[in-house]
Amino acid sequence: MSTAAPILLTPGPLTTSARTRQAMMVDWGSWDERFNQLTASVCEQLLGIINGADSHHCVPLQGSGTFAVEAAIGTLVPRDGKVLVLINGAYGKRLAKICEVLGRSFSTFETAEDQPTTAADVERLLRADASVTHVALIHCETSTGILNPLPEIAQVVARHGKHLIVDAMSSFGALAVDAQQVPFDALIAASGKCLEGVPGMGFVFASKEALDNAAGNSHSLAMDLFDQHRYMARTGQWRFTPPTHVVAALHEALLQYHEEGGLPARHQRYADNCQVLLEQMARVGLRSFLPPAIQAPIIVTFHAPKDPRYQFKAFYERVKAKGFILYPGKLTEVETFRVGCIGHVHPADMRAAVAAIAEALREMEVTEI
Amino acid sequence: MSTAAPILLTPGPLTTSARTRQAMMVDWGSWDERFNQLTASVCEQLLGIINGADSHHCVPLQGSGTFAVEAAIGTLVPRDGKVLVLINGAYGKRLAKICEVLGRSFSTFETAEDQPTTAADVERLLRADASVTHVALIHCETSTGILNPLPEIAQVVARHGKHLIVDAMSSFGALAVDAQQVPFDALIAASGKCLEGVPGMGFVFASKEALDNAAGNSHSLAMDLFDQHRYMARTGQWRFTPPTHVVAALHEALLQYHEEGGLPARHQRYADNCQVLLEQMARVGLRSFLPPAIQAPIIVTFHAPKDPRYQFKAFYERVKAKGFILYPGKLTEVETFRVGCIGHVHPADMRAAVAAIAEALREMEVTEI
Repeated sequence: MSTAAPILLTPGPLTTSARTRQAMMVDWGSWDERFNQLTASVCEQLLGIINGADSHHCVPLQGSGTFAVEAAIGTLVPRDGKVLVLINGAYGKRLAKICEVLGRSFSTFETAEDQPTTAADVERLLRADASVTHVALIHCETSTGILNPLPEIAQVVARHGKHLIVDAMSSFGALAVDAQQVPFDALIAASGKCLEGVPGMGFVFASKEALDNAAGNSHSLAMDLFDQHRYMARTGQWRFTPPTHVVAALHEALLQYHEEGGLPARHQRYADNCQVLLEQMARVGLRSFLPPAIQAPIIVTFHAPKDPRYQFKAFYERVKAKGFILYPGKLTEVETFRVGCIGHVHPADMRAAVAAIAEALREMEVTEI
Repeated sequence: MSTAAPILLTPGPLTTSARTRQAMMVDWGSWDERFNQLTASVCEQLLGIINGADSHHCVPLQGSGTFAVEAAIGTLVPRDGKVLVLINGAYGKRLAKICEVLGRSFSTFETAEDQPTTAADVERLLRADASVTHVALIHCETSTGILNPLPEIAQVVARHGKHLIVDAMSSFGALAVDAQQVPFDALIAASGKCLEGVPGMGFVFASKEALDNAAGNSHSLAMDLFDQHRYMARTGQWRFTPPTHVVAALHEALLQYHEEGGLPARHQRYADNCQVLLEQMARVGLRSFLPPAIQAPIIVTFHAPKDPRYQFKAFYERVKAKGFILYPGKLTEVETFRVGCIGHVHPADMRAAVAAIAEALREMEVTEI
């Protein structure tokens, strides 16, 4: 395996810094005090990012981000609760699927993949169905890169006295959310996204009040965030074997996050990446799927060229041979591909990526873009 | 963080080789063909260890080993099934707890922590309760290090036409199990144990017949092994974001496993470690809790010294300062501590560890052992 591996322009796993990976060169005892300190430091730093130390617990969980999302719904929605799921892409659909499998009552509200849910939609839906106890939504839907108006929706949900669950997997760390301004019961993210750690753990910011009242809700032993938090609060340890190297990498990634300048700096770099990407791709003639106003600087969906000589797999392989890994499209009705703006990448990488894309299209003799 | 970190004499996370950790220095795209090949190679190598390619699927799962155990029970025990759980330690109790949380009917049979369950016990229990559909047991109970007679119990379970679920977390890769000789529906282990990978994923060997009939059993979306397998069989990819670096480390660890000589060599090294440990500790006067006949060469429980000047925490810190991380005892009635024999450690390390232990006790002026 070469260390000159391709740059990942994907929404996670993504490109990490060598320093972050280097933190995995040590084996940690999961019972050892030094490792407990590492975990505590990770949680403290994470809570700081949302200004949530007073109001929320940070509960880390083994597994991918979806495990943490399922754990949050299973732990925080009582068995007789009802979830209103807001959908405009594959991850919103996954929220509904989780409710279905867990046997939680739910209803869905779906907009087109280029159409954010609005606060007015949520207002209307909550007026129409008083049995809803929780609202669940995706902050930035990775299917397209669309940004949903979280602060406005959160205000409506709070005004109705309902509980909010936010899947902020692909936005957390890059798009600001202040827990003192945006009321939520749970906000969920993972190690391997905008924090630029490696994948293998998620975490849930759970409001102290909601979590303290969540005993016995969970459908699962391993995914019971109430138990996970209680055990960690008492012992400093993870309840079951933690992914020690992943935790160490996230800790090192968080140190770099703060050294870079925290959320404003991370957001600015991704916004710069996104702008360079959009500008350079426009020169090649490649059009983005979303209008700029609802395009988060996380991942950009591009229309595939119309030319019959274009074929995603061959295109992907050619771009990869030039050092960049792209991401396939996830839309059902339009042929697209995606390019991530996140990870340990910079505007110069985006320029180089677009140059590789243009060259690949030339080689494939794709002329009709 | 120093790379001259202490040697972990713990049952996982454990000490890995530098080569295994080095495999985590690359970022992998989870959608990329090369990563799919890595996953396929891991599963193929794992199936080879149990001679199970014809009879079983290998289903990897994100999270700790407990996640995989819960997933196996949730996926393979129908909702109207009944599990007989055989218990002689903390991990057996955890199996029962999983059944309880998942709402699966179960009964328990508990023997003392130094008392293996016997095939005769299981014979009697199955005769007495025809409603049992599944038997679940721990192969090597890490609480003490006790080995349960898996092949004999498996024969009884099969003769009764019942299904067997084996938690082989701490034994897999070091103690031989041949799927063609030992009938089971599921055998579960994890990356960070005797294979000497890093923690962060488990895997379930599920009999093809049992898994093919398991649609809709699972209580969980993320832990549904039927879906996980079906998706992977169709796409080559993990259903949700895999812990890419953990998978790469396991792949590299498996290559070294085979280079060392596979299971017989791994078993022999651990047996040598265990023998040296027992001999050297006996010289210091430290007695092991289990008789040799039921002591697996995985982890050894020792009686704590009787001397009032002995105190585990101080002892642990002194031994750690000399380069070795021990493991606390987990018995309720007897004061003990544990020393693992597994990981990238050799008999010379065990000698050095016991020398450190003896020196720590001398420094603490512990004389009454």
